[in-house]
Amino acid sequence: MIFSDPSSVAVVGASANPAKWGYWLARGALRGAHRRKVYLVNRSGAVVDGVAAAPGLRDLPEVPELAVLCVPAETLPDVVEEALELGVRGFLGITAGLGAEREARLAARIRAAGARLVGPNCLGVYDAATSLELAWGNFTPGSLGIVSQSGQLGLELAGLAGEAGIGVSRFVSVGNQADVTAAEMLAGLAGHDRTAVVVLYLESFMDGRRLVETLAGLRASGKPVIVLTVGTSQAGREAALSHTGALTSGTEVVEAACRAAGAILVQTPAQAVDVAQLLLDAPAPVGRRIAVVGDSGGQGAIAADVLSRHGLAVPPLGPASSAAVAALLPSGAGVRNPIDLAGAGERDLTTYARLVEVLLGSGEIDGVVLTGYFGSYGADAPSLVEAELEVVDELGGLVRRRAMPVVVHSMSRDSAAVRALREHGVPTYATIDQVGWSLGLATELALRTPRAPAAGAGGPGPGTAPGYLAARAVIAAQGVAFPGAVAVRTADDVLRGAAGLRPPYVLKAAWLAHKTEVGGVVVGLREPAEAAAALDGLRARLGEGEYVLEEMDVRPHTVELIVGARRDPAFGAVVLAGVGGTLSELHRDIAVELAPVTEEEAAVMLSGLKAFPLLDGWRGAPQVDLPAAAAAVAAVSRLVADRPDIAECEVNPLRVGPDGALAVDALVVPAAEEPVEPATEERA
Amino acid sequence: MIFSDPSSVAVVGASANPAKWGYWLARGALRGAHRRKVYLVNRSGAVVDGVAAAPGLRDLPEVPELAVLCVPAETLPDVVEEALELGVRGFLGITAGLGAEREARLAARIRAAGARLVGPNCLGVYDAATSLELAWGNFTPGSLGIVSQSGQLGLELAGLAGEAGIGVSRFVSVGNQADVTAAEMLAGLAGHDRTAVVVLYLESFMDGRRLVETLAGLRASGKPVIVLTVGTSQAGREAALSHTGALTSGTEVVEAACRAAGAILVQTPAQAVDVAQLLLDAPAPVGRRIAVVGDSGGQGAIAADVLSRHGLAVPPLGPASSAAVAALLPSGAGVRNPIDLAGAGERDLTTYARLVEVLLGSGEIDGVVLTGYFGSYGADAPSLVEAELEVVDELGGLVRRRAMPVVVHSMSRDSAAVRALREHGVPTYATIDQVGWSLGLATELALRTPRAPAAGAGGPGPGTAPGYLAARAVIAAQGVAFPGAVAVRTADDVLRGAAGLRPPYVLKAAWLAHKTEVGGVVVGLREPAEAAAALDGLRARLGEGEYVLEEMDVRPHTVELIVGARRDPAFGAVVLAGVGGTLSELHRDIAVELAPVTEEEAAVMLSGLKAFPLLDGWRGAPQVDLPAAAAAVAAVSRLVADRPDIAECEVNPLRVGPDGALAVDALVVPAAEEPVEPATEERA
Repeated sequence: MIFSDPSSVAVVGASANPAKWGYWLARGALRGAHRRKVYLVNRSGAVVDGVAAAPGLRDLPEVPELAVLCVPAETLPDVVEEALELGVRGFLGITAGLGAEREARLAARIRAAGARLVGPNCLGVYDAATSLELAWGNFTPGSLGIVSQSGQLGLELAGLAGEAGIGVSRFVSVGNQADVTAAEMLAGLAGHDRTAVVVLYLESFMDGRRLVETLAGLRASGKPVIVLTVGTSQAGREAALSHTGALTSGTEVVEAACRAAGAILVQTPAQAVDVAQLLLDAPAPVGRRIAVVGDSGGQGAIAADVLSRHGLAVPPLGPASSAAVAALLPSGAGVRNPIDLAGAGERDLTTYARLVEVLLGSGEIDGVVLTGYFGSYGADAPSLVEAELEVVDELGGLVRRRAMPVVVHSMSRDSAAVRALREHGVPTYATIDQVGWSLGLATELALRTPRAPAAGAGGPGPGTAPGYLAARAVIAAQGVAFPGAVAVRTADDVLRGAAGLRPPYVLKAAWLAHKTEVGGVVVGLREPAEAAAALDGLRARLGEGEYVLEEMDVRPHTVELIVGARRDPAFGAVVLAGVGGTLSELHRDIAVELAPVTEEEAAVMLSGLKAFPLLDGWRGAPQVDLPAAAAAVAAVSRLVADRPDIAECEVNPLRVGPDGALAVDALVVPAAEEPVEPATEERA
Repeated sequence: MIFSDPSSVAVVGASANPAKWGYWLARGALRGAHRRKVYLVNRSGAVVDGVAAAPGLRDLPEVPELAVLCVPAETLPDVVEEALELGVRGFLGITAGLGAEREARLAARIRAAGARLVGPNCLGVYDAATSLELAWGNFTPGSLGIVSQSGQLGLELAGLAGEAGIGVSRFVSVGNQADVTAAEMLAGLAGHDRTAVVVLYLESFMDGRRLVETLAGLRASGKPVIVLTVGTSQAGREAALSHTGALTSGTEVVEAACRAAGAILVQTPAQAVDVAQLLLDAPAPVGRRIAVVGDSGGQGAIAADVLSRHGLAVPPLGPASSAAVAALLPSGAGVRNPIDLAGAGERDLTTYARLVEVLLGSGEIDGVVLTGYFGSYGADAPSLVEAELEVVDELGGLVRRRAMPVVVHSMSRDSAAVRALREHGVPTYATIDQVGWSLGLATELALRTPRAPAAGAGGPGPGTAPGYLAARAVIAAQGVAFPGAVAVRTADDVLRGAAGLRPPYVLKAAWLAHKTEVGGVVVGLREPAEAAAALDGLRARLGEGEYVLEEMDVRPHTVELIVGARRDPAFGAVVLAGVGGTLSELHRDIAVELAPVTEEEAAVMLSGLKAFPLLDGWRGAPQVDLPAAAAAVAAVSRLVADRPDIAECEVNPLRVGPDGALAVDALVVPAAEEPVEPATEERA
């Protein structure tokens, strides 16, 4: 592979000055001189580590396979032209400041010649397996793959990985992705033996669906991916036109993409590396039930709080397990979870291992967190070194036998026991914060099944007419129920139409998108005559137009949902569901997934809402018809996923009662009307 | 002070065995032998660091002022008895396992003799100013005071403080607080010169209002307190009887107490120490507007996201500041916040200081976060050491002159520049996570004004009758408006009563607490006759009793609030307010404060709700009458704060429209009915 193990490399712009990029790239390249030919090029001459630079590419004894470009932006096009003429096949563009237009031209020229370009404006590539060090910085060899749109953020990740003892298998700074994309470099890691876990940093998502497939492929090859990105600006959110748009223009869509791909989204480089450590060292989590064991009640309680905040459960133990735990503790110690050793660890260090053995074998929990002094015994009392290491050995054996994670928060940042724990498959951290996010996120990741929904394959659709009646028709065709209704323009229409409808009635100005806000809806009309009078009132205020007379949904015990779907420019169709419109919006309590979703997946979306209890028989009310609600969500998701002519579709509210779901307002936005708006704001 | 600088100390139970507590306590005590007499006592004899133990307290040449108790639990009472007879005035109880009853007896005996006891079951005390090391563990002298209910958690804090270069001024493990309480030890820090910032760890809050006063006192003496506690179990929440109870039985009340006291609640020891570092090193934050400066767009964007999650703003700069910033950057670099140096830092390190100067002087921001490579230049390129240190010097000067915080996230964990930054008043952290929580929490703390509301001074009140009508009367007497209503028992009562009321009407079974859930409310009754018929229906279903006929609130543009107050066993009266009952409950979007609150404070509570936009003219609706809502919150808060006979009071909902607030359901729980329930669960 030309960017991971080229047969020969030339660093163009090599420099003897350590304050210049050309120096670091040349020095790094020369470290691989035992494996490949390394040439340096500098018009004015330069000597790095005893190797003299040639004045130009033409002066080299052979044509290098890969050229590293550290020359000033002005000279770059000429250098590339010369290299292409000679037959160079790969370019690593370190140089920055070309400007978008010259950059695009350069990339097109390189592709046209059948060559490829990584960058420009990148920090380079590193591969531990092939001694390829064409990057600024120092790397510790290891098993973490890093692909980063920001070079320096990638270096921060690599530095933290080195400190954590994980090390880096391959590092790729993709820079401006003028030619080779992050997704391509990511795909290359699937067959890279040294890479066991991957961290991806991206700011913009170009072909999101393809990225999802790549991520799912890595997961399938046993290499989970940790994704780091940055949020949309508030301004971007405020610019959205519909509720659905406002609710799906942040990282919600990236999160949905990660769920679909079986990847995990984290918030900071430190979180990424800590989660990677757990994924690398420990068995994959199999569930959320964690037992906390501490030699301090306070630390155990803090740990339980932190784990709960990270989506894990610290459940009470059943009677048999409680008795088994109690048998290992001083009499009188209350057995609950978190378990307080109450001095038992001090008296006999093997208590730690025996407790973990009981817990992992209980069938009631999925992992153990040890918090407190363990890892420090030997460091503080040399007579305990051996005994503590023996316990570590036993813990390692238990973890392997039971294939469940044991994670340690140790008050010792580094000790023989802490190092041994990590070597024995027991990830160990200096703070409980790190334990919380590592175990929480790794569990979330492990419990995800990639699903990668097929993007809509349909050709252009028939298009849609504007207004509520057309929207009704399109959505109803997908099997979503609406109340009975007739179009009306005059009081006579109302009196005639009402005959076929069940009172009470609602009148709506059908052509308005935000009817309620402008007084375009009148509810609770009991008689046809009352409805006819109401229409006259509406006409006087809003003018002539298409109104609709509709049966009013007066069923008891209904809950209102918002259901919507839209086409994200990067990730394609996405679907959302939330309870109770306004407040869900303020609390951002919405479920977002890549569309389409099946009815089963839609049901999972609903059940994950904080407001789900309202649907599930809240305070003695009957449970609403969840399958009907899920079916409506799935229907709306299909509509946008399958019909390229529809940009956006929203049912708001969908009124769900114990006996079914009724859509009582709906909006369909044709594709042409959709404003172009990226999923996340692009940053330099 | 007997527990911070005793004139003489005896360690009873001193041991030569490093695996025993008696060894560590003796060794630590002897380190202060240059300042005070230190005696060791052991029945069987022992020699520690060349000092021989006496067989008993009677065998010492003088009566020690303070006795450290490391003896087994069984012998403890006899040792204390002998010591009291000799005239020992202070006891530090390391010994654990006495049991609650023996412990209480011991404490009573000690108090009766005019002596005091810290512990038992504590890890000891340490004071850097007086060379007092009567605690297990090693301490780095510094300026952080630590008072902890859990000894080992206290040691974790001390260890992290040592690693962070902060060090400890005084450490007190209060253990079981059988006599001396955490609040007392905390109060002692007010006059402790070496202590600049305090961390308090508590699991149970005994006299919460006194603690609030102590915390406020420390704040007033310039020593902010960082509070760490653990949450209530889910079981505790579920056991609560009313909505108000369920919504105020977690750490909400502790948070409210911290707000009132001008203290800050954190979640983990690492957060506590990181915040302490910022408070110790940097000027107190003066606002939330932060400028982010990075030499990597990616790191800047991640930083902006993290800061936003911690309650800080990263606002765009105005035209003048933007121009001033642009003048320092390469042409073409987009000036926004976060600011990307785009190579300017590399080209000229002084850019960092000049940018910070412009930003701190702009009047548009309250602090600067630098993220990325700064702190590493000199470490990687020795030729840059001096230049980088000069920039550090300038940054330090700017921070002092402007009295605004500059906080650094450096990719170097430790370097000459990083150490210099800390010495120059620029807190520097290895991860952006730490910057986020440190600056976020320190800002929150700095912006709080302690208010310490007076606990109700009133004597026993008149008591309250059960039912809605009595509750109405009690709450209305505080100035909260209710709809017109009459008590009714028969259809005749209804027909008569309706004459004085405005339709439509509501009928309620007045004696039921959860009327709606059991169908005890009928709404929308248009005519007196309809109401009379509805009463007959209710009587048939729910039986005879006191019903109430009430005017139905049909004003447009109303928003429903829940307003409640209750008496917390530890912290006394607390008040809560939330929007829209059910969903606010599911989202826990409620404001809780110690009661009473003024109308101004109540308005601040409302404005902090996530759902506040609903009150503030949501989507073109008129703003509701916020002063009326705030007045109702304040009235409910006074009711419980001032009347010991009332345990709980709830108005749910309070319907607030543009023209006032109406309470349409209410509940008052007399004090006797209140279940006893601690604010936070007590842990061992």
